[in-house]
Amino acid sequence: MQELIQDGSFVYIFLDGKRNWIRRVKEGEQFHSNKGIIAFDDIIGRPFGLRVQSHSGTVFQIHKPSQNDIQISLGRNTQIVYPKDAATIVNQAGICAGSRVVESGTGSGSLTWIFSRAVGSSGHVYTYEVREDMYLGAKKNLERYADMDRITMHHQDILDGIKEENVDAVVLDLATPWLLVDEVHRVLKPSHFIASYSPTIEQVMKTCKAMGESGNWGMIKTLEVLQREIMVRDNKTRPTTWMVGHTGYMTFARTFSVE
Amino acid sequence: MQELIQDGSFVYIFLDGKRNWIRRVKEGEQFHSNKGIIAFDDIIGRPFGLRVQSHSGTVFQIHKPSQNDIQISLGRNTQIVYPKDAATIVNQAGICAGSRVVESGTGSGSLTWIFSRAVGSSGHVYTYEVREDMYLGAKKNLERYADMDRITMHHQDILDGIKEENVDAVVLDLATPWLLVDEVHRVLKPSHFIASYSPTIEQVMKTCKAMGESGNWGMIKTLEVLQREIMVRDNKTRPTTWMVGHTGYMTFARTFSVE
Amino acid sequence: MQELIQDGSFVYIFLDGKRNWIRRVKEGEQFHSNKGIIAFDDIIGRPFGLRVQSHSGTVFQIHKPSQNDIQISLGRNTQIVYPKDAATIVNQAGICAGSRVVESGTGSGSLTWIFSRAVGSSGHVYTYEVREDMYLGAKKNLERYADMDRITMHHQDILDGIKEENVDAVVLDLATPWLLVDEVHRVLKPSHFIASYSPTIEQVMKTCKAMGESGNWGMIKTLEVLQREIMVRDNKTRPTTWMVGHTGYMTFARTFSVE
Amino acid sequence: MQELIQDGSFVYIFLDGKRNWIRRVKEGEQFHSNKGIIAFDDIIGRPFGLRVQSHSGTVFQIHKPSQNDIQISLGRNTQIVYPKDAATIVNQAGICAGSRVVESGTGSGSLTWIFSRAVGSSGHVYTYEVREDMYLGAKKNLERYADMDRITMHHQDILDGIKEENVDAVVLDLATPWLLVDEVHRVLKPSHFIASYSPTIEQVMKTCKAMGESGNWGMIKTLEVLQREIMVRDNKTRPTTWMVGHTGYMTFARTFSVE
Repeated sequence: MQELIQDGSFVYIFLDGKRNWIRRVKEGEQFHSNKGIIAFDDIIGRPFGLRVQSHSGTVFQIHKPSQNDIQISLGRNTQIVYPKDAATIVNQAGICAGSRVVESGTGSGSLTWIFSRAVGSSGHVYTYEVREDMYLGAKKNLERYADMDRITMHHQDILDGIKEENVDAVVLDLATPWLLVDEVHRVLKPSHFIASYSPTIEQVMKTCKAMGESGNWGMIKTLEVLQREIMVRDNKTRPTTWMVGHTGYMTFARTFSVE
Repeated sequence: MQELIQDGSFVYIFLDGKRNWIRRVKEGEQFHSNKGIIAFDDIIGRPFGLRVQSHSGTVFQIHKPSQNDIQISLGRNTQIVYPKDAATIVNQAGICAGSRVVESGTGSGSLTWIFSRAVGSSGHVYTYEVREDMYLGAKKNLERYADMDRITMHHQDILDGIKEENVDAVVLDLATPWLLVDEVHRVLKPSHFIASYSPTIEQVMKTCKAMGESGNWGMIKTLEVLQREIMVRDNKTRPTTWMVGHTGYMTFARTFSVE
Repeated sequence: MQELIQDGSFVYIFLDGKRNWIRRVKEGEQFHSNKGIIAFDDIIGRPFGLRVQSHSGTVFQIHKPSQNDIQISLGRNTQIVYPKDAATIVNQAGICAGSRVVESGTGSGSLTWIFSRAVGSSGHVYTYEVREDMYLGAKKNLERYADMDRITMHHQDILDGIKEENVDAVVLDLATPWLLVDEVHRVLKPSHFIASYSPTIEQVMKTCKAMGESGNWGMIKTLEVLQREIMVRDNKTRPTTWMVGHTGYMTFARTFSVE
Repeated sequence: MQELIQDGSFVYIFLDGKRNWIRRVKEGEQFHSNKGIIAFDDIIGRPFGLRVQSHSGTVFQIHKPSQNDIQISLGRNTQIVYPKDAATIVNQAGICAGSRVVESGTGSGSLTWIFSRAVGSSGHVYTYEVREDMYLGAKKNLERYADMDRITMHHQDILDGIKEENVDAVVLDLATPWLLVDEVHRVLKPSHFIASYSPTIEQVMKTCKAMGESGNWGMIKTLEVLQREIMVRDNKTRPTTWMVGHTGYMTFARTFSVE
């Protein structure tokens, strides 16, 4: 009843927090690292959750890629919204099975991926990206891992307008979110949430000010989330020495209705 | 196209972070607070996302209850897993539309509620509670808000065994999680996640030790999450003076397969 | 060789983090609390560091007031700079035995007290306060506990000018610190530190901008300090549930010389 | 009246947070870095707080070394107690001008240096180090910067006993602080503070347990301090991406007297 690794499966090859890879298994091929080689033929037909020894003696874990393994992989070499923040956005904006979500910019597609998993086949993610290189990169990324039936990609500047209406949530990761608060209010169901992610406090100030002045937004709040890892070792338990001290602020607000 | 408040609707009545209520609207009845009275007849037939003035002049916001409004409401008077931690568990354990999740203890049902929203109609939550008063209270809570087709409630000590098999995630909020690591391994799909939530570091140490000794768990890690609110006010922007400094530690690990 | 409690001694009476008092011992008098009465005659002639039982059975600790006991006591009913921040200012501004320090505003005198202890009899603290009620209150506070030979109190708006020159450090806890950066530069020794404490980020922005535009300041940096208490209890070790999430930002910079 | 850089002066040469050096100025010699050369003859006779351009065009700041510049410099290549923690220890243990302080281990001497500055010429620091290489290294370090009249260095294991009595504070940075709590109680004035610094929570647990069982310690508390830097830049203000997430826990307690 265990799921078996097959020719064509994606695998997550894990050594430690810094050395881990997602690879597509192919018959007759090998995974190469400076800690040794793993022949894919040695793992095909065996269940996920393996420990295998490379030819040079290092033990790797072979897992089925998790949602976050893929998210982090999508964002390699670009700036992604960290899992801690993606989790907060999904939670605070009430994104769940069945939600229809608008997002911009698509970026690497890593947040699109998380949302597409959260909304399921009964929901949908509409994502906007103005830069062609980003749009094409995200498209390739998402086609590799995601169920594209749940995702609509717009190669368009969201500042030119949102095509969808009556959506359950809008998530912005933009340089100038304050320019969009009226347009977002227009397309969002009453009492539903906007989530705006910004690295700097000036962006947050301008966005909150625009929301306040419009009079259309209630329960405006801004959060930041710090995540700390505890190294639990026999007689040596302690938090890790370094941690991420800042990624971005997240501003949430709820639409007032217009009667 | 806006959703209208009806006789029987749940509403979230918001004044500020400490003064807010979920109520069921009934024709001819009123909401009473020390900031004045709102007649439900005055809001029936109008869209969610309202601002209404009580007879004594205070403005209340009337929203459709969000996922987190309900979660927090369910946990009133008991100890709940905070949204920041619930969000981290859903995210790190990869719980999404379609997941089959085992949880214990049910407690107030607040985490069951969050999971039931995340898994959607194609997933399922199996929840265990040994204490009869908690079981009955959670049942009443969940029947009020949740889609019970997605939830199976066991009035049983999970230490006596898990009835389900081949599940996508197991979430423990128990006094002695270390006693369950073998049983959880038995019922969890390979490469899938256990999440264990514990307030004290001694619980975490024992759980990590039990996992390590079993040899069945990979990528064991323990996180804590701090959430900080920023008060964004014109020329007076600053984090809130008080914050929650600790709720619990969350330990995640991934099952190795048995060949 | 132990120091004994005498008629006229100050004592710190401690029950827990919230219930503690500094009192002056007087023959024939008593300390009253809702946890019972302690007769001062019962503790006179005994060493500090006592545990005594009130007539109603509660055990109080009787300590010699520490530097921080007194600092916190001075600030009761007003807004004080917390010990965590006072410590950071002393440390980062290099305030030590022998330093000559200018400070404004005096407020309750609680920071003046800390500085007067740090600089010792070979140093000096010059403190400015514009409000008469604050000036008089601080004077009374400081005369009660501090060595006034080390302290000069100015009942004056520091914006009208600093009387001292060639000082080792200047510490500002003011609404508009940016108005003072040139004046502070004038009186501070080259390569020495200004420390500016502000609750809001807008104050910090304006102060850093004024420093940058003047061209007179090097190594400008802004810190915030979070302090967390860990409750170490047998099998129940965990951080406290609530913590102070924000008090103020501290900006430090170092004077460039003028040739 | 400005202090001038002289032949033999120590200077702190600052480029940024990672590239900075303390050097002794010598006539006819030069400072070399990969950002260019500075001839000491070009700065001798000029005041501290200079900006000078290297031959290759980079601007360096030349400051008089501050207390923390020297502390950090002393600890290069070893594990030091960070300024944030040193500040907390000085503050919470009430170390000030005139204090007599016992410390162990000496390590690099960086904490000894901080204490020697805090206690001034009317106080004294007694420091114990069992390892000869550390003892000799710290001796060399301290003779370079500190006033040795205020410092007594013992090349001795503090577990063999403390030579001083009736001291104002004892600061431990040891692998096994719990073995010393009775000996420290013996030499500390009543109502005065022990401060114990430990990286792991198990060390803290054992130390608090030993204190509790001895019955000799009051007001036992354990703190950790997080320091965050805010980058204040025009329209780009935000905390730094990375921060130190853990250094050590600090346990403080106060001696009960023995009658």
